[in-house]
Amino acid sequence: MSESHQDIRDAVRALCAEFPPEYHRKVDAERGYPDAFVEALTKAGWMAALIPEEYGGSGLGLTEASVIMEEINRSGGNSGACHGQMYNMGTLLRHGSDAQKQKYLPRIAAGELRLQSMGVTEPTTGTDTTKIKTKAEKRGDKYVINGQKVWISRVQHSDLMILLARTTPLADVTKKSRGMSIFIVDLRDAIGNGLEVKPIPNMVNHETNELFFDNLEIPAENLIGEEGMGFKYILDGLNAERALIAAECIGDGYWFIEKVTEYAKTREVFGRPIGQNQGVQFPIAEAHIEIEAANLMRFEACRLFDAGEPCGAQANMAKYLAAKASWEAANACIQFHGGFGFAAEYDVERKFRETRLYQVAPISTNLILSYVAEHVLGLPRSF
Amino acid sequence: MSESHQDIRDAVRALCAEFPPEYHRKVDAERGYPDAFVEALTKAGWMAALIPEEYGGSGLGLTEASVIMEEINRSGGNSGACHGQMYNMGTLLRHGSDAQKQKYLPRIAAGELRLQSMGVTEPTTGTDTTKIKTKAEKRGDKYVINGQKVWISRVQHSDLMILLARTTPLADVTKKSRGMSIFIVDLRDAIGNGLEVKPIPNMVNHETNELFFDNLEIPAENLIGEEGMGFKYILDGLNAERALIAAECIGDGYWFIEKVTEYAKTREVFGRPIGQNQGVQFPIAEAHIEIEAANLMRFEACRLFDAGEPCGAQANMAKYLAAKASWEAANACIQFHGGFGFAAEYDVERKFRETRLYQVAPISTNLILSYVAEHVLGLPRSF
Amino acid sequence: MSESHQDIRDAVRALCAEFPPEYHRKVDAERGYPDAFVEALTKAGWMAALIPEEYGGSGLGLTEASVIMEEINRSGGNSGACHGQMYNMGTLLRHGSDAQKQKYLPRIAAGELRLQSMGVTEPTTGTDTTKIKTKAEKRGDKYVINGQKVWISRVQHSDLMILLARTTPLADVTKKSRGMSIFIVDLRDAIGNGLEVKPIPNMVNHETNELFFDNLEIPAENLIGEEGMGFKYILDGLNAERALIAAECIGDGYWFIEKVTEYAKTREVFGRPIGQNQGVQFPIAEAHIEIEAANLMRFEACRLFDAGEPCGAQANMAKYLAAKASWEAANACIQFHGGFGFAAEYDVERKFRETRLYQVAPISTNLILSYVAEHVLGLPRSF
Amino acid sequence: MSESHQDIRDAVRALCAEFPPEYHRKVDAERGYPDAFVEALTKAGWMAALIPEEYGGSGLGLTEASVIMEEINRSGGNSGACHGQMYNMGTLLRHGSDAQKQKYLPRIAAGELRLQSMGVTEPTTGTDTTKIKTKAEKRGDKYVINGQKVWISRVQHSDLMILLARTTPLADVTKKSRGMSIFIVDLRDAIGNGLEVKPIPNMVNHETNELFFDNLEIPAENLIGEEGMGFKYILDGLNAERALIAAECIGDGYWFIEKVTEYAKTREVFGRPIGQNQGVQFPIAEAHIEIEAANLMRFEACRLFDAGEPCGAQANMAKYLAAKASWEAANACIQFHGGFGFAAEYDVERKFRETRLYQVAPISTNLILSYVAEHVLGLPRSF
Repeated sequence: MSESHQDIRDAVRALCAEFPPEYHRKVDAERGYPDAFVEALTKAGWMAALIPEEYGGSGLGLTEASVIMEEINRSGGNSGACHGQMYNMGTLLRHGSDAQKQKYLPRIAAGELRLQSMGVTEPTTGTDTTKIKTKAEKRGDKYVINGQKVWISRVQHSDLMILLARTTPLADVTKKSRGMSIFIVDLRDAIGNGLEVKPIPNMVNHETNELFFDNLEIPAENLIGEEGMGFKYILDGLNAERALIAAECIGDGYWFIEKVTEYAKTREVFGRPIGQNQGVQFPIAEAHIEIEAANLMRFEACRLFDAGEPCGAQANMAKYLAAKASWEAANACIQFHGGFGFAAEYDVERKFRETRLYQVAPISTNLILSYVAEHVLGLPRSF
Repeated sequence: MSESHQDIRDAVRALCAEFPPEYHRKVDAERGYPDAFVEALTKAGWMAALIPEEYGGSGLGLTEASVIMEEINRSGGNSGACHGQMYNMGTLLRHGSDAQKQKYLPRIAAGELRLQSMGVTEPTTGTDTTKIKTKAEKRGDKYVINGQKVWISRVQHSDLMILLARTTPLADVTKKSRGMSIFIVDLRDAIGNGLEVKPIPNMVNHETNELFFDNLEIPAENLIGEEGMGFKYILDGLNAERALIAAECIGDGYWFIEKVTEYAKTREVFGRPIGQNQGVQFPIAEAHIEIEAANLMRFEACRLFDAGEPCGAQANMAKYLAAKASWEAANACIQFHGGFGFAAEYDVERKFRETRLYQVAPISTNLILSYVAEHVLGLPRSF
Repeated sequence: MSESHQDIRDAVRALCAEFPPEYHRKVDAERGYPDAFVEALTKAGWMAALIPEEYGGSGLGLTEASVIMEEINRSGGNSGACHGQMYNMGTLLRHGSDAQKQKYLPRIAAGELRLQSMGVTEPTTGTDTTKIKTKAEKRGDKYVINGQKVWISRVQHSDLMILLARTTPLADVTKKSRGMSIFIVDLRDAIGNGLEVKPIPNMVNHETNELFFDNLEIPAENLIGEEGMGFKYILDGLNAERALIAAECIGDGYWFIEKVTEYAKTREVFGRPIGQNQGVQFPIAEAHIEIEAANLMRFEACRLFDAGEPCGAQANMAKYLAAKASWEAANACIQFHGGFGFAAEYDVERKFRETRLYQVAPISTNLILSYVAEHVLGLPRSF
Repeated sequence: MSESHQDIRDAVRALCAEFPPEYHRKVDAERGYPDAFVEALTKAGWMAALIPEEYGGSGLGLTEASVIMEEINRSGGNSGACHGQMYNMGTLLRHGSDAQKQKYLPRIAAGELRLQSMGVTEPTTGTDTTKIKTKAEKRGDKYVINGQKVWISRVQHSDLMILLARTTPLADVTKKSRGMSIFIVDLRDAIGNGLEVKPIPNMVNHETNELFFDNLEIPAENLIGEEGMGFKYILDGLNAERALIAAECIGDGYWFIEKVTEYAKTREVFGRPIGQNQGVQFPIAEAHIEIEAANLMRFEACRLFDAGEPCGAQANMAKYLAAKASWEAANACIQFHGGFGFAAEYDVERKFRETRLYQVAPISTNLILSYVAEHVLGLPRSF
């Protein structure tokens, strides 16, 4: 790990340390949004890590961005409140026009706007994205949006959302991956004016929603890139997203390992620290080893991405390994805390709930295995 | 499974069906107590299953009691609100005096009193029970209790608690398992008069508490059995408790399997039901097989218990197998529901949180493995 | 377990004890056949357990037969040399004519004939049996057999083989499961006269072969049951076969547990028995628990079979659970023996190789999971 | 991976390709030694990779040496016949005198001598090496060796062995790790003159032996380094050994993945390639991912070692991860080959047996977990 990464790591860690477990615990208990925390991250410039310097950001790479995400989770916080901006940024950077970048990036970098939401998933399509039904019809200098989305996160705490919608009906395209387009939606304008937001209470304090579009009008200039190419643009961002998620899992994983190791060293039952029992220390050691291995894959994926080399295999494997390792660490941590693992006061149960999500979202373990089987090993597609 | 079990099963199932998922979901969301549900179970006589007919109960065996618990969990409810009475009953039945039984059992059977709490665990002892520090000193016709307990469940919704306390200091006993005694504590009298109750917010809607005893006085006649023999009396009840827990896990397990199987049959992605994918159906099938195997062990443990035969190995193995199987089923269920698994509305996330507890409480997986290694296989004690 | 089973168990165990580890080790090293062992089992009547008393056998049920198989494997031997007669017997009993039974059963019971082989599998069909290409054409009072089989066991040490062949081409049947028939083949006549046997050297000392049929003539009277119904007859026997295999796995499992437990108690490293380490004793205890659970399922499957009730689910689950458990026990056993686990002299490596086969033959784990998913849970067929 | 590694990889691969599966299969069937193969590797200079150029070797680093070992195993061969020279070389290089190096290294580099054996383990000590009982007593200009060793590999195919023996009794040393010394033993002189070699038949075609020393005399000048420091010298070499073993496991792992992927693509059952089934392709993909992760850790360990930085954690983790991954790949490979996996002709069963050994030798999985728990995480020693 290069020195500069350690600098970033130290700085983010110091900032996070100002938000102790009590802070995150309270936000969780209230199902609130960590405003102060995200504000502090934004002010310190971390949320603009991926924005080029010419637009007011720090112009860092994916590796550095991943260190930021990792440290947030490792500190006991949860990136879920703000990682959207990291995930989505690449799409705007790669495919947005210069005018769009000029309009949005400096204000995002300054913390005046948040780009935290991405509207892709729909209730009836699951991960079969080409089947989406939300459509955008061009009428003059507007696009009119109708349809429905689900699992759209941070909508209530973001100003902007990147939206995927069909601009050409599936029946009229030669390739099913064509005919979809992406748009910047100004959420402050949209909510209540054609966009209804319905939050989904869930196991984690993660703001996620159903969205209902009823003739929502957006300016035609909000189309990103070329009409019909939106699906491809979304795909372009997936490897970065997966590498970042891997980093978050790894942050969680280290948090669990540190928490349970400390507990196992000090908790005495039957006259000795429980960590002296192999039945306790071996699962912790196993989870630690898996985290370290996943971490190497995550850095390899980031390295390749930042070098502009293909990194699909590595990004997918990193996400798979990291989500698995953090979950094993989570289980060791909750298990060896006994009852205390379930008590809100120990924070273990909160992180346990949170890290479980990474095996499902934004892509399930099974789809990663399918990817590796098909695209890495050359086995036939199974579905 | 005999016909009578099917009768019990059907009757409990019919009663539970009057309390739909919405009911349990709402109680969970409010962190409330399922009063109406427990009331209905009590009125129908199910909570008095283990009380002999001469005291107004139905005089059923452990097998039948386990079917009741299983069906509660299988219906989407959670036995945690009321299983204490099943767990504790044996202690009173086996070791209580006739006067004590006359005093309490008919009123418990009639639903006028609840015996839902057992006060054993302490913060500094974990499962090393002989180290408990709560003491009961005899003064005239009273015992005076001082000390602290933790993870004591349902105290706010029970009338009676069986309490374990040291009556002879550890230093003064020849065997460390001696010198502890059990008492019936009338919680309505005690709370506020020497007993302070501090609830522990936790991952599950399970009312559990810290108890602080400050010169709580209880009548000497509330001693159960012989002074100094309390630890042995508690141990006597553990096999029944483990077999019952196994049944609850199995109820959970079937709930998860049914839920995810139904979902996998009907949820279509990529043009076919997701349950057609081996990556989905195999983990469900594996979990199902494990539940079926655990279930046989649970019935074997109950059979031996009801026949008065040794059943320590079977009860421990049943609990181990069932808790493991329900957790595998839970993970398959939440995983294959995708995001929906995390949405409160699907109930999966609630049951997922609940069933995780069975691997920790009332005894951890590691201690069962130690039991089997030592007491079944004759390997040396490891701690 | 009823008393009579204990009688059988004791008797088989006593017989097996006359064939110490050295015997089986030597047979393995030489890739020989345990003639003396099978002879002793036959003389004692165990190989005729399933033959009705009227035909000179002992008329026992599947439960008892499974105890015999279990004890052979538990003693350190391997049922692979002789279980074919148990697997195949049901087919002859249920579907053979009285004349066929009169002709063969008394001589099998007397040990004059062995019915150890079943010729079903073909190289190009795998488990997709309806695709078999071996054909039997009726010519006068003969059937003429042409085709090829693979993985046909004990052909060199059996007198009789039950053979499945197409009597009506696949193209001419309305249901693909029709048009196949089973025959008794007298191997002594056949080998060299239309049947060529090519042994397949393999990881286990298990005599298995490729068979090449070139105009092998067999008397028409050797057809078992009705022409065209052979596939159904074969299916009828699968549940019994799976329950028996489960029993063999369980025998292996106990052998591994006993072997490694004894070693872990006595082997001292770092000044204490290695079995005192949870890292050693927990995997042993886990494997033991899994064996016990599998064993309950195996007895349940046998009980249902003997009662004439449907037992497909139980037989398949028993085989799945038992093969998994024996393999876990095998891995614990070889692992904790360190280098000694690999030394032929300790017998562990031999049993380790042998028990691995049960996850593949005669049916793979995946196909059992498919069975449970489809036929027990009602999920769609996945292939 | 740098270009030079690819050069090495290609060259070793080309050499290995001259020894097809039939070659290794035959050697295995005969329990022979792959003389021609080791000879070819030696002639090509690969066995002298770690010998500095000044002594006639190629002066490569551990990374390059690990690539050689990986490619041997990946080609279908087994490094077990010759890896000893790689493992042992560091000890001689770091601690041998210049005279010793001058005497041995050029001849080893030239292929005239083989340094393939290391004599450490004893039957009663297991991995508790400080308890060894073999002693070396100095008498004039000789050391006289008495005692016993076990699991000493390649003694019959090596010219030299590094031997660890006690030169000061355990009772007379202040630290139990002191008082042991290492020696070069000329095996050609020793066998029959104080050294008796008894081979241990085992599951793998791996020549390993019991050694009995009865007043074996060796020249005093054969002491390596300082008397009494031998244990430390041995420890110094363990990290390199573990990184090399990891590379061998990874070679095995790739072999299994390639073998089973090819088979799964081409083997058709039920009308489609079996690799289209997720139940087949997912375990292969999982094993592949684990191999890739282990591989990154292996290169990290080698990199640190070659840079002279501490690498204990990485070397141990690499060995743990790689041995686990190769075993998972092995199981997927044998399982999805069905019966063919057990047939010697497919080579799968041979590699399956071979790769299992890596979880036991030269260090068990449990001891690695103990190492990580204690030395990486700071948990208490468990034994």
